Amino acid sequence: MKFANRMEELKPSDIREVMKMIAANPGTISFAGGLPDPNLFPSEEIRVATDKVLKENSSIALQYGLTLGRPSLREKITKLMAREGVKATIDNIAVTTGSQQAITLSTMMFLDSDDVIITENPSYLGALAAFKPFETSFVGVNGDDEGMLMDELEEVLKNTPKAKMIYVIPNFQNPTGRTWSLERRKKLIEIASKYDLPIIEDNAYGEVRFEGERVPSIKSLDTDGRVIHLGSFSKILSPGLRVGWVCADKDIILKYELLKNASDLQSAELAQMQIDEYLNENDLEEHLNKIKKVYKERRDLMIKVIKEEFPKEAKYYYPEGGMFVWVELPSHINTRDLLKKAIERKVAFVPGGSFYPKGDCESSLRLNYSTMENDKIVKGIKILAELLKESI
Amino acid sequence: MKFANRMEELKPSDIREVMKMIAANPGTISFAGGLPDPNLFPSEEIRVATDKVLKENSSIALQYGLTLGRPSLREKITKLMAREGVKATIDNIAVTTGSQQAITLSTMMFLDSDDVIITENPSYLGALAAFKPFETSFVGVNGDDEGMLMDELEEVLKNTPKAKMIYVIPNFQNPTGRTWSLERRKKLIEIASKYDLPIIEDNAYGEVRFEGERVPSIKSLDTDGRVIHLGSFSKILSPGLRVGWVCADKDIILKYELLKNASDLQSAELAQMQIDEYLNENDLEEHLNKIKKVYKERRDLMIKVIKEEFPKEAKYYYPEGGMFVWVELPSHINTRDLLKKAIERKVAFVPGGSFYPKGDCESSLRLNYSTMENDKIVKGIKILAELLKESI
Repeated sequence: MKFANRMEELKPSDIREVMKMIAANPGTISFAGGLPDPNLFPSEEIRVATDKVLKENSSIALQYGLTLGRPSLREKITKLMAREGVKATIDNIAVTTGSQQAITLSTMMFLDSDDVIITENPSYLGALAAFKPFETSFVGVNGDDEGMLMDELEEVLKNTPKAKMIYVIPNFQNPTGRTWSLERRKKLIEIASKYDLPIIEDNAYGEVRFEGERVPSIKSLDTDGRVIHLGSFSKILSPGLRVGWVCADKDIILKYELLKNASDLQSAELAQMQIDEYLNENDLEEHLNKIKKVYKERRDLMIKVIKEEFPKEAKYYYPEGGMFVWVELPSHINTRDLLKKAIERKVAFVPGGSFYPKGDCESSLRLNYSTMENDKIVKGIKILAELLKESI
Repeated sequence: MKFANRMEELKPSDIREVMKMIAANPGTISFAGGLPDPNLFPSEEIRVATDKVLKENSSIALQYGLTLGRPSLREKITKLMAREGVKATIDNIAVTTGSQQAITLSTMMFLDSDDVIITENPSYLGALAAFKPFETSFVGVNGDDEGMLMDELEEVLKNTPKAKMIYVIPNFQNPTGRTWSLERRKKLIEIASKYDLPIIEDNAYGEVRFEGERVPSIKSLDTDGRVIHLGSFSKILSPGLRVGWVCADKDIILKYELLKNASDLQSAELAQMQIDEYLNENDLEEHLNKIKKVYKERRDLMIKVIKEEFPKEAKYYYPEGGMFVWVELPSHINTRDLLKKAIERKVAFVPGGSFYPKGDCESSLRLNYSTMENDKIVKGIKILAELLKESI
């Protein structure tokens, strides 16, 4: 039997390989995942909300529903979009099976095979995985503490006639933890307009800000319907429900509807009702404050120990929110090799090379702080520091 | 902004248009959908199961999980596969977001653009919709009461070098309600072997058999890993949970894992646990018997009224299970026009043309009997009979 050409390009993600190593070494302190802390799920509140839905509306919750999602949930999502400075109605919202599906559907909407996606360099591993089955290629544009470098972006676009979409994570980026400045966001829209390209703004972490002012979303600066904003309940409520969304112009949402209908008909009706009912009865702000307090403590601690223990050659980035600390090492250090040594000492992270579209940088690493308790953070970072000192 | 070429091919499904007409005419007797009767959902049992999961295991249920799905649910799915005569282990099972996603992932796995999918003629509208975004074309092969015509299939394959996959619904087919004979299933495997093609066996309705013997699944006759069996909890438990599955050779399942991971990471963990726990505590057989009893009564009644009232020129098919009665009319009758008249009289169905890959037959219609109560079935079919008599 012959498989499609796209299958040749696909291989298991590096993170999955790391997860296998961790599974083979029980007791490992893992900074590898990108998971929310399950102890912070509002489990009891979700249980109560779920029970109410299934008692009162099971014939709706267990039945097929609308492809774009439940209007009442989409209405609530418009309120989350208002926090991002975006005026939206339910016609601007499509519910998706996590924001991962939204990345896939966006790729389907804008890319033919051999087209090119512009990403940050490095960028979210899962997005790179989502792009691959469509036989597109991607070009990573470097960034600094303000976001993607706009001169480099212009240069790339000038030389990449097949560029069809720009994918960015402007808040607490995965993997670097960086947040784009307002100026850089404005400039991105300007350049995207010039080249008439859509911008996919992946905002999975936007609500997880520990300090500082929220920067207006790129979508809020959009005047010609070029920005497609992706949101998700995964990091703020629960990833296991698989509910994310797209916010875009109405005409574009109708195109998402066609693709979504073809792909999986609709996202789970019950999961949407669970979130809807949870939001009816609970204060999301309060829950977010609870999450942010814990994650902030863990970030503070991780940064503190890194500062104290890591050799000075290791450059780390201070994230104002989200889940990750990014570390860059001298270029002769290969962090895939480092990982093997770390696993022997029962500490795990994700080697940074996985996040580079071209795989051309192997000397960085991503540390997640959202799931490990304080004593493990201290112990794990100290072990990494020892390994780094040995290697540098 | 430029959209991908595939977007030009996509248009709203005809069923959705019918649904809009129904919504605009409240009180319409609808034979149009393909929905299970929500009154037959085991709502209380699912509520109890859900509450237990969220009380005891919320930190797992609300968290990310494995791309291929929960091992304990996959184990239970192997038992459903055993009912189909298939020996499977959990390594042969991938959980998907409904079987709709399984159709999409299968298309991604086997088809490059411009390749051809062989389907029954007519075939499931949702599958045709799932194929389209991949810029494939499809050729429908006609059938009779035993299933697809094998001579015609051979002829088509001889002349279609770009054929890469055969998609069939051998049990209570959507839309015709027909079930393939064992002989035809064997012959299909023989021909697929000769042309070295994969067979996608969509078995969404297999468990909804009212009478007669279960015919061995095509997968159970597979000796060289060529058959990919799609199953779903949508028709037997609840479509709103969006849980379906693929059963295939282990190597192929690993490829589904790659595509599934790229597409939506995983299906909802909680939904999988709800079904798993429901199956722990309840007798699925008993529930199936309850569903089948009601659907059988409705089929019997629909067939009885059709027999009594429809003009003799209307040829109908007697389904041994599933949800649909298929009616073929003289070729001068256009059922899209007929639908408009029916909607005026507050009765709806799906015009058959939508189910033909080439849209080359407009004189048939699909009637669903799973959701309407007895008095509505009688009234609705009588109205249709009057309209048919006027038209013929």
